[in-house]
Amino acid sequence: MRTRKKPWAQKELETNELLIETPEVYKGKWNLYFSNENPLHLEIGCGKGGFITKTAALNSDINHLALEREKQVIVSGMREAKSRELKNLGFILSEVSMLSEYFEEGEIERLYINFCDPWPNRKKWAKRRLTHEGFLNVYKRLLAPGAAVFFKTDNRELFEFSLNSFCNNGWRLKNISLDVEKSDLEGNIKTEYEEKFSSMGMPIYRLEAYTVI
Amino acid sequence: MRTRKKPWAQKELETNELLIETPEVYKGKWNLYFSNENPLHLEIGCGKGGFITKTAALNSDINHLALEREKQVIVSGMREAKSRELKNLGFILSEVSMLSEYFEEGEIERLYINFCDPWPNRKKWAKRRLTHEGFLNVYKRLLAPGAAVFFKTDNRELFEFSLNSFCNNGWRLKNISLDVEKSDLEGNIKTEYEEKFSSMGMPIYRLEAYTVI
Repeated sequence: MRTRKKPWAQKELETNELLIETPEVYKGKWNLYFSNENPLHLEIGCGKGGFITKTAALNSDINHLALEREKQVIVSGMREAKSRELKNLGFILSEVSMLSEYFEEGEIERLYINFCDPWPNRKKWAKRRLTHEGFLNVYKRLLAPGAAVFFKTDNRELFEFSLNSFCNNGWRLKNISLDVEKSDLEGNIKTEYEEKFSSMGMPIYRLEAYTVI
Repeated sequence: MRTRKKPWAQKELETNELLIETPEVYKGKWNLYFSNENPLHLEIGCGKGGFITKTAALNSDINHLALEREKQVIVSGMREAKSRELKNLGFILSEVSMLSEYFEEGEIERLYINFCDPWPNRKKWAKRRLTHEGFLNVYKRLLAPGAAVFFKTDNRELFEFSLNSFCNNGWRLKNISLDVEKSDLEGNIKTEYEEKFSSMGMPIYRLEAYTVI
């Protein structure tokens, strides 16, 4: 997402205690960070954090982490989470390529990927898509057996690519929707981006991909 | 498909040697019907037969069968196949519910299902859809290990239903297309129906579902 420069972002980042500055120290022991033994759910690319904040507020028995690489964006989510006094949500300002530095094998119970960059049209960019098999192999290692990736996009080409990528990589798909608004899915929590596009009548695609036990 | 009554259909049926009148006698020994040991591919609901006729013409080393329950429709395909002098295609006038009477376990190498009735909107009709798990269990038994169903539709709801149905039933999906015309799929052979809708710019959905070896 392209954003305007926000000079206050750096300052707000530094003073918000929901930012986890050294996530690597919690690798394999996120229960210590949250001071409980609850399952761990992670959103990759949380943007302004609307989705993960609402999700965390509705699921107090789950620990949530939100990864985002744009500081101008992550601060919005952190502000919202702080105002709601959420104890089960932390933010990590970093890149997806760093996941293995922060999480032990099998430590994550669920991964959310919402409206990631589709890297359209060009085959040479396919490996940057967050559902490319290169990434799926990382997720598979970090997820517990039988745990899942929950994936949403408004981009048909990316969804087609992702369906094939998960299938070829041996995941078990469930609850595939080619238009979330018209499906039987209950309790769908929308991102800011999704609110906008969904209200314009654009179909939102969604799937759940489970690791095979 | 609703068709006008064609009084000549019955007569043409009776005189076309491509109609297999007693398919049950070939159960487990279709190689005797075709007088060779080639693999057997079956289209369920061949309609006017454009797809299976072209497919058979392009694949002389494969034996093809076309199942259709409407005699007013099947005669068109039979006439076309006869004019092309295809030796690797036969027609069966019958219902999908009869499959187990005509084929032995593991006897079929590929099943084609193209633009079947979507039975839309009503849950109580779901079990009539040709990709309902009730049917998938039959296909799985009649297909050889690692063999596949090739499925196409222009109906988004039916495709969504089918993706979930195959996944829940333990098939391995490959080459999923959410718009065949825009995908990398090569050599797509179109049905009469597909020619019409595809030329209007409507997306055609397609998948290949393999039985697990």
